[in-house]
Amino acid sequence: MKVLVTGAAGFIGSNLVDALLARGDSVVGYDNFSTGQERFLEGARAHPAFSLARGDVLDQPALTAALAGVDAVFHLAANADVRFGTEHPRRDLEQNTIATFTVLEAMRAAGVKRILFSSTGSVYGETPVIPTPEDAPFPVQTSLYGASKVAGEGLLSAYAAGFGFHATVFRFVSILGPRYTHGHVFDFARKLLADPTRLEVLGNGRQRKSYLHVEDCVAALLVALEGAPGPFAVFNLGQDHYCEVNDSVGWITDELGLTPRLDYTGGDRGWIGDNPFIFLDAARMRALGWAPRHRIEDSVRATLRWIMANTWVLEARA
Amino acid sequence: MKVLVTGAAGFIGSNLVDALLARGDSVVGYDNFSTGQERFLEGARAHPAFSLARGDVLDQPALTAALAGVDAVFHLAANADVRFGTEHPRRDLEQNTIATFTVLEAMRAAGVKRILFSSTGSVYGETPVIPTPEDAPFPVQTSLYGASKVAGEGLLSAYAAGFGFHATVFRFVSILGPRYTHGHVFDFARKLLADPTRLEVLGNGRQRKSYLHVEDCVAALLVALEGAPGPFAVFNLGQDHYCEVNDSVGWITDELGLTPRLDYTGGDRGWIGDNPFIFLDAARMRALGWAPRHRIEDSVRATLRWIMANTWVLEARA
Repeated sequence: MKVLVTGAAGFIGSNLVDALLARGDSVVGYDNFSTGQERFLEGARAHPAFSLARGDVLDQPALTAALAGVDAVFHLAANADVRFGTEHPRRDLEQNTIATFTVLEAMRAAGVKRILFSSTGSVYGETPVIPTPEDAPFPVQTSLYGASKVAGEGLLSAYAAGFGFHATVFRFVSILGPRYTHGHVFDFARKLLADPTRLEVLGNGRQRKSYLHVEDCVAALLVALEGAPGPFAVFNLGQDHYCEVNDSVGWITDELGLTPRLDYTGGDRGWIGDNPFIFLDAARMRALGWAPRHRIEDSVRATLRWIMANTWVLEARA
Repeated sequence: MKVLVTGAAGFIGSNLVDALLARGDSVVGYDNFSTGQERFLEGARAHPAFSLARGDVLDQPALTAALAGVDAVFHLAANADVRFGTEHPRRDLEQNTIATFTVLEAMRAAGVKRILFSSTGSVYGETPVIPTPEDAPFPVQTSLYGASKVAGEGLLSAYAAGFGFHATVFRFVSILGPRYTHGHVFDFARKLLADPTRLEVLGNGRQRKSYLHVEDCVAALLVALEGAPGPFAVFNLGQDHYCEVNDSVGWITDELGLTPRLDYTGGDRGWIGDNPFIFLDAARMRALGWAPRHRIEDSVRATLRWIMANTWVLEARA
């Protein structure tokens, strides 16, 4: 199978590229390297079944050209910054909503109809149903990021209904593991390297979150590539347990051998749009035969160790 | 109160403008007249409290200028063509999703934070819950129109959470009444005027739909302008009963004194994305003190009579 991955040089994208190559697929990696990292594709670029297309997901002709002969698209390229959405509201619209439309139009032009799309658990907003199933009550968006992702989901389902696409949506919890480049473990590591004596924690530290290791995430994407029913299906991806931010602080400081003073900014959420309790019901994905293998504590610790072995990423993403 | 209405020269917009003026508000009508009708604003333009701003909802500077001194915005401008979305997929993205973003950004620039937005019952897709409440299960979009409206809703709620907006969303069933310019009554009237001996009916005629008279729709918008809670609320707008397309065919042919042969195209829906059963639960809106006064049969008959007294509209919207 020949697969195109948008955001191929990103955290999840590059892990997916490696997994697709390892199982024998041909892969076109599509990335504009605005946040993607050249180093994440070093292994892939040595592989004969990999080709790199440098381009922007808003460039429909470039996308269409890259789609020649492709059987399926993983559309992972996105602005993944939830927290600072209000500082640049156009970014989520362009890089997520309009970009997803552009990918779909390029696919239509190229005659490619199989798409798998990285959405987010953030689309549930502050849902009253936890653990949250895919058919939770009609959500209210609390972030521009969530709004842009639910817009992307709507486009995929409309293309499935109107143009015969086979579309699969994944609603991720936060993903951890090798090549992780943003999120709370990243922020805590950077802060502690700058000042090991204190750590600022956004909110009261009691926010409850579920996390998934990128290996488990990629395994689910591959299961769904073959197993997700058409024309349209949605799958939550997350672990079957959660932790508090304070738990994660404990694991991180333990890995680093530090005992910083903890300064809480206070309140039950870290920022506007931060959801104090994210816990998704992933039974639908498990019913396809998938099961995550990394527990949250192991994923947090592994992520911290990967960052410490790759401190260049703290500079690259500063 | 000074109110700006986008799509002011449209069907619902012009009825709303007249109602706002009648109750003593100042109104800025904003329209690009791409589908709006000059004649619909003839009465308003004679009113001293009305001003017209000719502009496009994608023109952020023009919108921002028109918003000077405005207290609240009804954002009704939209591509309202559900049926032919797949013939021009970019239209829903631009005229609905991006236009709504542009209105919100213009409001932010102008310091206006109260917005009321016309969404659609189509955002529920083919929901399993009928009558459908606002917190029905997370929907799957079946049309580009629905996808663009759910994207607009997400933007409003994100602006409410992130920028302190007070946002109200209305999910309309199809609206009928004076100044009606598209939909099944319009199509049937046009077909019967061209050939009174036969009538093509899309689908099997058994599609069940709820309709609302534009007077009842506008009454709800005015109730919600004052009564809808902030920061974000969603209201279904529809009647408490429904009809079959065949019922409507009977009322229309009865009004016209015709007995055409009925030619059904067949199938349980009229087109891709047509929902064979639309019936919204409007209890939340009723709890604010609103109740519709026109039953569906009366609304269909009144619409047909208005079209026959204004056949110019069949040409204008051909």
